Amino acid sequence: MPKQTLNIAMIGTGSIAKAHSNAFRQVTHFFNVPYDLTLKVICGRNQTKLESAAAQWEWHEIATDWQVVVSRPDIDVVDIAVPNALHAPIAIAAAQAGKIVFCEKPLATSLAEAEIMAQAMRKVPTLVWFNYRRIPAVVFAKRLITEGRIGQTYHYRALYLNQSGNDPSKATTWRYRRSEAGMGAAGDLLSHSIDAALYLNGPIAELMAIMHTFVPGRDVDDATLFLAHFANGSIGSFEATRYGVGCRNRKTFEINGSKGMLRFDMDEFNQLQFLDATDPPNLQAPRNLTVTGPDHPYSENFWKPGHIIGYEHTFIATLGDFLGALARKEPLPADLEAAVEVQKVLDAVERSAASRTWVKV
Amino acid sequence: MPKQTLNIAMIGTGSIAKAHSNAFRQVTHFFNVPYDLTLKVICGRNQTKLESAAAQWEWHEIATDWQVVVSRPDIDVVDIAVPNALHAPIAIAAAQAGKIVFCEKPLATSLAEAEIMAQAMRKVPTLVWFNYRRIPAVVFAKRLITEGRIGQTYHYRALYLNQSGNDPSKATTWRYRRSEAGMGAAGDLLSHSIDAALYLNGPIAELMAIMHTFVPGRDVDDATLFLAHFANGSIGSFEATRYGVGCRNRKTFEINGSKGMLRFDMDEFNQLQFLDATDPPNLQAPRNLTVTGPDHPYSENFWKPGHIIGYEHTFIATLGDFLGALARKEPLPADLEAAVEVQKVLDAVERSAASRTWVKV
Amino acid sequence: MPKQTLNIAMIGTGSIAKAHSNAFRQVTHFFNVPYDLTLKVICGRNQTKLESAAAQWEWHEIATDWQVVVSRPDIDVVDIAVPNALHAPIAIAAAQAGKIVFCEKPLATSLAEAEIMAQAMRKVPTLVWFNYRRIPAVVFAKRLITEGRIGQTYHYRALYLNQSGNDPSKATTWRYRRSEAGMGAAGDLLSHSIDAALYLNGPIAELMAIMHTFVPGRDVDDATLFLAHFANGSIGSFEATRYGVGCRNRKTFEINGSKGMLRFDMDEFNQLQFLDATDPPNLQAPRNLTVTGPDHPYSENFWKPGHIIGYEHTFIATLGDFLGALARKEPLPADLEAAVEVQKVLDAVERSAASRTWVKV
Amino acid sequence: MPKQTLNIAMIGTGSIAKAHSNAFRQVTHFFNVPYDLTLKVICGRNQTKLESAAAQWEWHEIATDWQVVVSRPDIDVVDIAVPNALHAPIAIAAAQAGKIVFCEKPLATSLAEAEIMAQAMRKVPTLVWFNYRRIPAVVFAKRLITEGRIGQTYHYRALYLNQSGNDPSKATTWRYRRSEAGMGAAGDLLSHSIDAALYLNGPIAELMAIMHTFVPGRDVDDATLFLAHFANGSIGSFEATRYGVGCRNRKTFEINGSKGMLRFDMDEFNQLQFLDATDPPNLQAPRNLTVTGPDHPYSENFWKPGHIIGYEHTFIATLGDFLGALARKEPLPADLEAAVEVQKVLDAVERSAASRTWVKV
Repeated sequence: MPKQTLNIAMIGTGSIAKAHSNAFRQVTHFFNVPYDLTLKVICGRNQTKLESAAAQWEWHEIATDWQVVVSRPDIDVVDIAVPNALHAPIAIAAAQAGKIVFCEKPLATSLAEAEIMAQAMRKVPTLVWFNYRRIPAVVFAKRLITEGRIGQTYHYRALYLNQSGNDPSKATTWRYRRSEAGMGAAGDLLSHSIDAALYLNGPIAELMAIMHTFVPGRDVDDATLFLAHFANGSIGSFEATRYGVGCRNRKTFEINGSKGMLRFDMDEFNQLQFLDATDPPNLQAPRNLTVTGPDHPYSENFWKPGHIIGYEHTFIATLGDFLGALARKEPLPADLEAAVEVQKVLDAVERSAASRTWVKV
Repeated sequence: MPKQTLNIAMIGTGSIAKAHSNAFRQVTHFFNVPYDLTLKVICGRNQTKLESAAAQWEWHEIATDWQVVVSRPDIDVVDIAVPNALHAPIAIAAAQAGKIVFCEKPLATSLAEAEIMAQAMRKVPTLVWFNYRRIPAVVFAKRLITEGRIGQTYHYRALYLNQSGNDPSKATTWRYRRSEAGMGAAGDLLSHSIDAALYLNGPIAELMAIMHTFVPGRDVDDATLFLAHFANGSIGSFEATRYGVGCRNRKTFEINGSKGMLRFDMDEFNQLQFLDATDPPNLQAPRNLTVTGPDHPYSENFWKPGHIIGYEHTFIATLGDFLGALARKEPLPADLEAAVEVQKVLDAVERSAASRTWVKV
Repeated sequence: MPKQTLNIAMIGTGSIAKAHSNAFRQVTHFFNVPYDLTLKVICGRNQTKLESAAAQWEWHEIATDWQVVVSRPDIDVVDIAVPNALHAPIAIAAAQAGKIVFCEKPLATSLAEAEIMAQAMRKVPTLVWFNYRRIPAVVFAKRLITEGRIGQTYHYRALYLNQSGNDPSKATTWRYRRSEAGMGAAGDLLSHSIDAALYLNGPIAELMAIMHTFVPGRDVDDATLFLAHFANGSIGSFEATRYGVGCRNRKTFEINGSKGMLRFDMDEFNQLQFLDATDPPNLQAPRNLTVTGPDHPYSENFWKPGHIIGYEHTFIATLGDFLGALARKEPLPADLEAAVEVQKVLDAVERSAASRTWVKV
Repeated sequence: MPKQTLNIAMIGTGSIAKAHSNAFRQVTHFFNVPYDLTLKVICGRNQTKLESAAAQWEWHEIATDWQVVVSRPDIDVVDIAVPNALHAPIAIAAAQAGKIVFCEKPLATSLAEAEIMAQAMRKVPTLVWFNYRRIPAVVFAKRLITEGRIGQTYHYRALYLNQSGNDPSKATTWRYRRSEAGMGAAGDLLSHSIDAALYLNGPIAELMAIMHTFVPGRDVDDATLFLAHFANGSIGSFEATRYGVGCRNRKTFEINGSKGMLRFDMDEFNQLQFLDATDPPNLQAPRNLTVTGPDHPYSENFWKPGHIIGYEHTFIATLGDFLGALARKEPLPADLEAAVEVQKVLDAVERSAASRTWVKV
């Protein structure tokens, strides 16, 4: 199969840019896609970081002006891994230049902005990096739900806890400033939980939220919680916080249905708990599935059954799925519309927290 | 030390009456209290159950009219283990007759009723059986909090999940009827979580609740959830449900504070997870404490360190603490006022769910 | 059903005597057996301990000469809870006096002694307190094995770890002296693991052992390990140690069979892990069964499903099973012959360790 | 820093060759080493597999005759990932040709062979892929031991369980034939456990082993177990089996020392349990450390604290350590001598199992 070359331009040099770069380097080793990816140019404003990132990941060139980069005719893909407030101008410019656009989550700093972006981006293939949706355990949970293995859903509860905010002297990155991040824990963490919930349990009908800031003067939320009614009749409970002391990156969900239970805790990344309530009562128990195969999502792509994968593989799988669908001209799996739906829920969260009332999504 | 005999009358013959009976039989074996407890009379309406319970626990007599029983001059303690709606008349009559009154939780079917009961009961020594407050892990959590080991509290989250409601054909006991139970999951399960939260984290200032019934026609809540602001500035999240499929009796809490984390899951009854955020970062991790001694609550009372206790010991410890305080004429530890505070929160939960607004407790 | 009174004489006042006393007090509350147990007399040499134990458990009388006690005509049962070296004289005397004999494990300090005891004791009903065989999870494991749920056994591995020996200044009880205990970790801990192994996996054909003492001058084993071939073709690995720092009372077993796996860890007393290798490969995982019902061993006796039991219930169940079988004139379930088989394995362990060779059991 | 190019020749096309290829592609992204690695030529006998592996990992050339490959002047490194029996001829030829030699474990099919290989290989830089020694949790365990955090070691126990042998129809690869593998579970699995034990707990003085084959006619061991005395006075227990039904790739170790305990279970790849016995007794508990930083081994190389790594990273770290040491002209960390020591223990295991006696290593 002759391969098409895709020249990539990366905008950003931070830790997420590193995860994306790794995915560009690795995707063809694990996914059989008819593309050669060329790491053409990486673009940033801090010269030291830029040179370091370029050297580490073997980007061919460096650049400092994204506006020039996104309009270069030799670029096929623009990948955006910069603070949230910059997503919109770059994505819109890249889309208008006809590039394939990859954008880190959350899509935007507001629903209004997201909708403007979406209008521009709908003309090109797009990927939004909701990478945790590609954790094998999460995809396997989706499969079990789709097969009816947990029946009618009653409860969906999700946590996303880290402790980044607990040291006020350290919490000084752009993620803690409204002007750059739009939101705090809600955009950073909760958006992942919302994406997984919509994927696994369908639309949210209405919700009631708290957005709380523990440190006076900080203008983004440190913790956001909400209760929800899903369209399918189940009840949801969500919490995301940067004051989850004791947790470095703990993302969980639990689902109780009429026929079973699912539990995921990202501290046990490769595992999924599944209880089958149709088993004989004395054998009903959480099964601690290690989701590395056989017959588990992505187990054919990565290593042999029993061999553990991790954080970086979620980006590789996100990209692999995208490229596979692109090649087959299928609907793109990590698409813009899903990201807009997440933004609608985030918007409802903000409206509810501000008004202290229930709001429709 | 000469011992005083306390003649006990038990009103009720169900599974909770069994747990109380066991506590009456066992308390002097594990707690050094100057009382002999005589299981004088057990009272119920179903003759078969009554005779069976009396035989199993060696109650001296049986009776069918609680009004006669509570006024017998030879009775010192009236213990109430009947459906919630009967708590008030029996407790008030017993208190008016000058008896020591033990009452199963929740105290009442409404706050108004609880306050009337309390007025009568304040004249006598009282115990309300919030037994789970006496789990050694819970008491040890309280001790660590009091010692400042977790610092300022940021988050308190509590679940209480069982699956009793999931089989509609089975969920037909008095616990599923408003006329007898007052509330559903809220009174049965959530009351325990509220009691623990008030004990561990202090008063709740305001809250916002959902009370939901999955089965049409059922007139009590199947699931109740609420978000809260505690008086100490922390944020709370609570859920109690009878549709927690996969969980037979799963009661949990998690607390994140500025200096550490605590986690309890009643499926791991003898364990408490504690993370000390003042440890060197590379040694910070949840410690899986087995709270059976040495130097753990009640470890001197029960078995040697490493030897597991269970459900029944929470009732024994509740009673042992009460009798010890009674003998020493100290404030009674599982007292009426705490039960009234729980009722106030339950009342706020009902008001919030009905009005779909935030309410003050 | 008219009940027969059994008058009990307890020889011993230590922590095991406490566990036995509790069982005598509780058995009729949880097991429907046609006996009334009277705690008639407790016998010991230390007057303070004797009075304290008698008061705590409401023994009617105290005594200091066991030889007098075992021949009293009003005594039906003699229960032996004293250092191992005293088991033989008391058990033989009691049996010769026609008493029902209950004896703490291990039965004897040597196989020769055990066989002499057995000769005398075979004339009366006997119980040897291998209480851990009555943990619900262990009995349920037996049931799953018997039903063929794990197929042909390949591997059986067992640990019993405590840390009692690690503080040389503390390890000064009779359990650390050959003259009183006969063996160290082997008799104290390993005997339980052997009993469970014979119960679950059948006879051991031959073995190869290490008995090791870490502290110079101590004349019993601190740690005993052995490899074994079972008669059923499976391979066994056993370890018992008092230098298992970090473990207060950790008894485990794991079994791999052609159709599944079982794992038990006494730190998770109420749980049994079961993997069914006939499940579809992508659903094969350890199920973390909470063995408190429904349809689990002893779940009808104790509390409702989901309500945890502990250490003391193993003694109650041992006694309940014995009394039930006694009443029904069935073979006694915790019998002498099983204890003699354990002693044969312990004897082989000692011979192997001394000769540094494989020995037949 | 100018970089030196290393041209690599891979001999082998199986699943281990894939893991090595990935390491060659990734090492410079995570380790700052002054080398450019060129994936020059991959060599195998099965043309389909060869072309597929070359395409997947972008090897520049393919070849079918290793003897030609190892003597090519443009090759700097020969990497051996073929059945064990071929290690010796290839490694010796490559060393004699002056190449850097990388060899998959176990080094050889016998000690005699290993010693002949070592003689040839000592003249060139060498790496033996005992990759599991580079799991961050294992390296952190080593650090805690070196710092004296667990004190004097009493017990070391190790399991390595998979289930590959349980389906006789499937267990037909070269790993099940003595002529190609030399040993069965011992070489495949136990060698890893021995390597870790020597690394963490020092030399083994003497041992007593079982090598067992469950399937008649199979000429390698399905399961190998041994008991050991370490030179440091501690006692070891080892088991490796291909009949560990329920376990796909479960490698564990536990260490009890006078001051603490360590436990590792590869099913929880990113975690290490550590108990500090110098903590106050009521806070002593296994800490469930997630070994992804900060201040954990390799946490600077891979992702941010809390972000999980997996199987492939052990190969990358093995290679990264080697190249770093090579550049700095330091002793090579995964060296030949360690692999020879493993082979000596395996040889003692074989001698002991054959003679059914204790043997010195």
